[in-house]
Amino acid sequence: MKIGILTSGGDCPGLNAVIRGAVLKGVRAHDAEFVGIRNGWRGLVEGEFMKLDRHSVRGLSRQGGTILGSSRTNPFEGENGGPENIQRMLDAEGIDAVIAIGGEGTLTAARRLTDAGIKIVGVPKTIDNDLAATDYSFGFDTAVEIATEAIDRLRTTAESHGRCMVVEVMGRHVGWIALHSGMAGGAHAILIPEQPKTIEQICEWVEHVRDRGRAPLIVVSEGFLLAGMEEAHSTKGLDAFNRPRLGGIGEIIAPMIEERTGVESRATVLGHTQRGGAPSAYDRVLATRLGLAAVDAIYAGQWGSMVSLKGTDIEIVSIADATIGLKTVPEARYDEAAVLFG
Amino acid sequence: MKIGILTSGGDCPGLNAVIRGAVLKGVRAHDAEFVGIRNGWRGLVEGEFMKLDRHSVRGLSRQGGTILGSSRTNPFEGENGGPENIQRMLDAEGIDAVIAIGGEGTLTAARRLTDAGIKIVGVPKTIDNDLAATDYSFGFDTAVEIATEAIDRLRTTAESHGRCMVVEVMGRHVGWIALHSGMAGGAHAILIPEQPKTIEQICEWVEHVRDRGRAPLIVVSEGFLLAGMEEAHSTKGLDAFNRPRLGGIGEIIAPMIEERTGVESRATVLGHTQRGGAPSAYDRVLATRLGLAAVDAIYAGQWGSMVSLKGTDIEIVSIADATIGLKTVPEARYDEAAVLFG
Amino acid sequence: MKIGILTSGGDCPGLNAVIRGAVLKGVRAHDAEFVGIRNGWRGLVEGEFMKLDRHSVRGLSRQGGTILGSSRTNPFEGENGGPENIQRMLDAEGIDAVIAIGGEGTLTAARRLTDAGIKIVGVPKTIDNDLAATDYSFGFDTAVEIATEAIDRLRTTAESHGRCMVVEVMGRHVGWIALHSGMAGGAHAILIPEQPKTIEQICEWVEHVRDRGRAPLIVVSEGFLLAGMEEAHSTKGLDAFNRPRLGGIGEIIAPMIEERTGVESRATVLGHTQRGGAPSAYDRVLATRLGLAAVDAIYAGQWGSMVSLKGTDIEIVSIADATIGLKTVPEARYDEAAVLFG
Amino acid sequence: MKIGILTSGGDCPGLNAVIRGAVLKGVRAHDAEFVGIRNGWRGLVEGEFMKLDRHSVRGLSRQGGTILGSSRTNPFEGENGGPENIQRMLDAEGIDAVIAIGGEGTLTAARRLTDAGIKIVGVPKTIDNDLAATDYSFGFDTAVEIATEAIDRLRTTAESHGRCMVVEVMGRHVGWIALHSGMAGGAHAILIPEQPKTIEQICEWVEHVRDRGRAPLIVVSEGFLLAGMEEAHSTKGLDAFNRPRLGGIGEIIAPMIEERTGVESRATVLGHTQRGGAPSAYDRVLATRLGLAAVDAIYAGQWGSMVSLKGTDIEIVSIADATIGLKTVPEARYDEAAVLFG
Repeated sequence: MKIGILTSGGDCPGLNAVIRGAVLKGVRAHDAEFVGIRNGWRGLVEGEFMKLDRHSVRGLSRQGGTILGSSRTNPFEGENGGPENIQRMLDAEGIDAVIAIGGEGTLTAARRLTDAGIKIVGVPKTIDNDLAATDYSFGFDTAVEIATEAIDRLRTTAESHGRCMVVEVMGRHVGWIALHSGMAGGAHAILIPEQPKTIEQICEWVEHVRDRGRAPLIVVSEGFLLAGMEEAHSTKGLDAFNRPRLGGIGEIIAPMIEERTGVESRATVLGHTQRGGAPSAYDRVLATRLGLAAVDAIYAGQWGSMVSLKGTDIEIVSIADATIGLKTVPEARYDEAAVLFG
Repeated sequence: MKIGILTSGGDCPGLNAVIRGAVLKGVRAHDAEFVGIRNGWRGLVEGEFMKLDRHSVRGLSRQGGTILGSSRTNPFEGENGGPENIQRMLDAEGIDAVIAIGGEGTLTAARRLTDAGIKIVGVPKTIDNDLAATDYSFGFDTAVEIATEAIDRLRTTAESHGRCMVVEVMGRHVGWIALHSGMAGGAHAILIPEQPKTIEQICEWVEHVRDRGRAPLIVVSEGFLLAGMEEAHSTKGLDAFNRPRLGGIGEIIAPMIEERTGVESRATVLGHTQRGGAPSAYDRVLATRLGLAAVDAIYAGQWGSMVSLKGTDIEIVSIADATIGLKTVPEARYDEAAVLFG
Repeated sequence: MKIGILTSGGDCPGLNAVIRGAVLKGVRAHDAEFVGIRNGWRGLVEGEFMKLDRHSVRGLSRQGGTILGSSRTNPFEGENGGPENIQRMLDAEGIDAVIAIGGEGTLTAARRLTDAGIKIVGVPKTIDNDLAATDYSFGFDTAVEIATEAIDRLRTTAESHGRCMVVEVMGRHVGWIALHSGMAGGAHAILIPEQPKTIEQICEWVEHVRDRGRAPLIVVSEGFLLAGMEEAHSTKGLDAFNRPRLGGIGEIIAPMIEERTGVESRATVLGHTQRGGAPSAYDRVLATRLGLAAVDAIYAGQWGSMVSLKGTDIEIVSIADATIGLKTVPEARYDEAAVLFG
Repeated sequence: MKIGILTSGGDCPGLNAVIRGAVLKGVRAHDAEFVGIRNGWRGLVEGEFMKLDRHSVRGLSRQGGTILGSSRTNPFEGENGGPENIQRMLDAEGIDAVIAIGGEGTLTAARRLTDAGIKIVGVPKTIDNDLAATDYSFGFDTAVEIATEAIDRLRTTAESHGRCMVVEVMGRHVGWIALHSGMAGGAHAILIPEQPKTIEQICEWVEHVRDRGRAPLIVVSEGFLLAGMEEAHSTKGLDAFNRPRLGGIGEIIAPMIEERTGVESRATVLGHTQRGGAPSAYDRVLATRLGLAAVDAIYAGQWGSMVSLKGTDIEIVSIADATIGLKTVPEARYDEAAVLFG
């Protein structure tokens, strides 16, 4: 059997470990052949392939990024897109089945292509941990670890100067990274998209901390919305003061806190550092296991399925179950953490 | 309510995060008081207590070790031991209930004391991940991360000199740390107590790697036994050559590999570095959540229960279920990894 | 003898190690007493002191920030400022001499106070490494290490997406952090305040890298000026497009690169994470040695002197020599690195 | 010009950064060609070469080990050894000059070969920092950083159990790694080869620390000798109890401390982890600069010279000056640190 692999969407620590796990399993257990599909769906639509043998995956478990490259191309668009063209491309290359590693968009496309007869198995990839049907996805643990290290560092600066630090972490639609890194870093408030808060509530936490003689530390998801200001935010490209949006939500909140509480406040946006570099050991193990299992799903002919983590087990679920909607932070999880605020 | 907390057995990254989580939850949600019991059960038997208020737990989520100290004292031994003496001591201090953080021995003792009427809630603590009834325990992720970093470092030395590196990690009875760090580090063989292997099998893997032009890297649990030599190992204090045992299993295997394959081999014993220092973000979150939940269990009067991780949820189980026997690495998990060997 | 210690200006990893080194040396070698002066010069002007004995400095060598707090107060300003008031305050507290740890502003003030008869020994502190008369100052190595780790992480993202990454590091007036972290991280261009470059030159490097099939990585000091646009920059508070300045120079350059070369470009501002957290081993050793030597200088009565690093030795220099002007990156050092650009 | 590069002796973080620096400088500034000589002098004697162009050095600044391989072959031995054979081999390959990266043995050989007319420039490499004529050598900073991280981790275990931890670090003949990591980690005693101490002195420090209620932490170089027991140590292969030597000095001292002071004591041998893995930013910068300068020395025809660090400058010295004897820890540096002991 000849198996194609592609990685699609934003990069994520662990992508290469999935690729390595799949190739080693396929070559050793099934004598399979592999082909690398370059730059996500684009490589499948436009015919960009690369050699992918046992030697190509050497040392990949600890390497960040993706050796296959990635893109956000929609496989249904363009004159070469669509299931018929893609099937022709696969036939021309002799590819029997495809392992597609990606997030919600990628998996939704994979499901539609599977419905059209293309043989695909999905591997969930989301640094934000927002995919349903899997307990965790690789990349999330690394992002939380990096954010936590940054919070640890920022805390000493905050304490030395009696400042309030506002740390903006990734999470456009869900607050998982903020929730976990904020809990790990001992944040005095965690602000997530699922739980809009007023600036008054935030300042109350800040003052409470200040009054105990400590330096307030706030972790905020990039997608957090100030309660009562959702509309201002949503105006694409404009910030809360109706100016062209340059900074993130952290840079909006920090001056508001300073103005209202008198506590000198600084924002730090962690940005892309959260998604690059070597994966944590946790993510390497998870990603490797998902890669191994994806090959099993291929040989079991489970087209349209996705490998996923359930407790300590790798299970096979349907892609459809994974793409029913974002996995947001449940209220109970937020309340559990909120007892530590202020 | 006045709650005592004790940490017992070997230290483990995350102990302080449990203490912090419990104290903050108790103080804020229930207006509870806390007392630190020093040095495990010994403090309860001999009356060693320390102040434990909100201020004492500041910054503890990222601090390794345990501020309460630990010991391996058995609470049923000694003239002041046993449930009656302990109940008297608790009454004298006005302690209503105890949170006991520890491994199998600690929890077994906790169960027996609960049977005798003492109000205890358990929190699982095992760096080796060998406790049943919880998916993972805190400290394990940190140990795996540290071992993986060491393996990454040793690999470059191995490759530069064409050497075989044998890395001995913790795990006296179970192979979880070896399994996860070996998988994360891309080991060419993982040797665990649950799966005795002959030196011939090990050398076959080594030669296979050498023949591909690479430097073999083997991860071995300290409790691994060479198949056919179990008896020699078990003679307490004597090594495989009947000499007083100074080194670990890694130092036994490395020269055997070198002698049989001709590949220069070196052993490295990671030792205590695996259990000290700041916990990983994963362990901080898990430990904090267990601490929060332990207080809930106290207020629910669930004596003899233990807080545990199930998927992404913290659940309440019975201590009895957690102490039925060590959680070993299942054969399926070993076989899953073994496809990557050689 | 009773010695006061103060830390002034922005925080810097290693401040606590200096304090620890000084206190241990003073207490053990000279039976000295110490007093902590809170929040820089402000504590001396307004009489904020804290206990500083051997017990207070326990474990400080690895702790970031400063336990004394810091501020940017000028000791010559305010109604309680000036040498006479300060001498009165010192007399009232029985303080015989002061160790002042700070950067150019702090040391200049220290020199003026020494001229007025106050007994001060200086310790150089600048994360930017911009102080003359010392080879390196503590904090710089840590900042370079943190920036390098971030660059390593950003590189994998850049390569996966074929993007240009612009990493903005600290350095308002000098380019040392950019020079060292850029060299360590293998940057394709390093932009520093001492060497204005045109956007055309920058784009030439970017295109050169892109044409070799790689993802360009640029490290830029926050104080870098685009040649020909110095005036625009210098308009305080306005950015290059005459808008209220929210982002840094990285956020100005990245879109310019994208527009001119067609290479998708992203800016990441590392910000405060570079100055917080545990110091590197290098900085701990340097800071500890400076603290030890500062006490020697006190007992030698070398008022107005500063301890400094020269090769591998700690030497005593005059504060005047250290405050003659910023230590900028020499042209030869920039040219040495520039052979690696493009 | 065609330049050969070889790396010889034990591996060391930064070797690859030297290679990268030299190749990029040679290719870009001088249009030079490069050849990789495999496995140290052995490759020159036996004719093992590899391609070494600009593409081969991509990403090498952060990669540990050496892509060229290494060995401890003496170029004067064997039937193909000696200057005449080597010159013939160089001529056959068209190699005009050689950059030899190595420690004392390598450089001594390089000097003798230069005396015999072979064109060599040396680059100092010693993880132990024991080479004269350079302030520091690359690899040392990384080793100190790794050792310091391990010490930080071991401290929390020590404190939790009230144990004495004995940490054995590298340094067979000199104590630099122990001195710096011990100072950085806040050790209560540092034991180095240059300063034999009696077990009584060591136990006095341990008891002093224990009496203050703390857990003693001792850092010891592998080459440290107990005063009065030098002879026992020197019996190659036998330990202090006349048994075949399996453990290191740490494993000898720990039980002696426990027996004499009653303080439970544990040894940890850090071993090979200190010399592998990614170099620190400091070492990457130093190694890169040395590589750049080595090419300058080649083009200046300075045969028999070595590039070295002097303060913040890279200078050219004679190999003869670098091989006059090991650079040991001066008494003044030990005394400086000793005020922190006990």
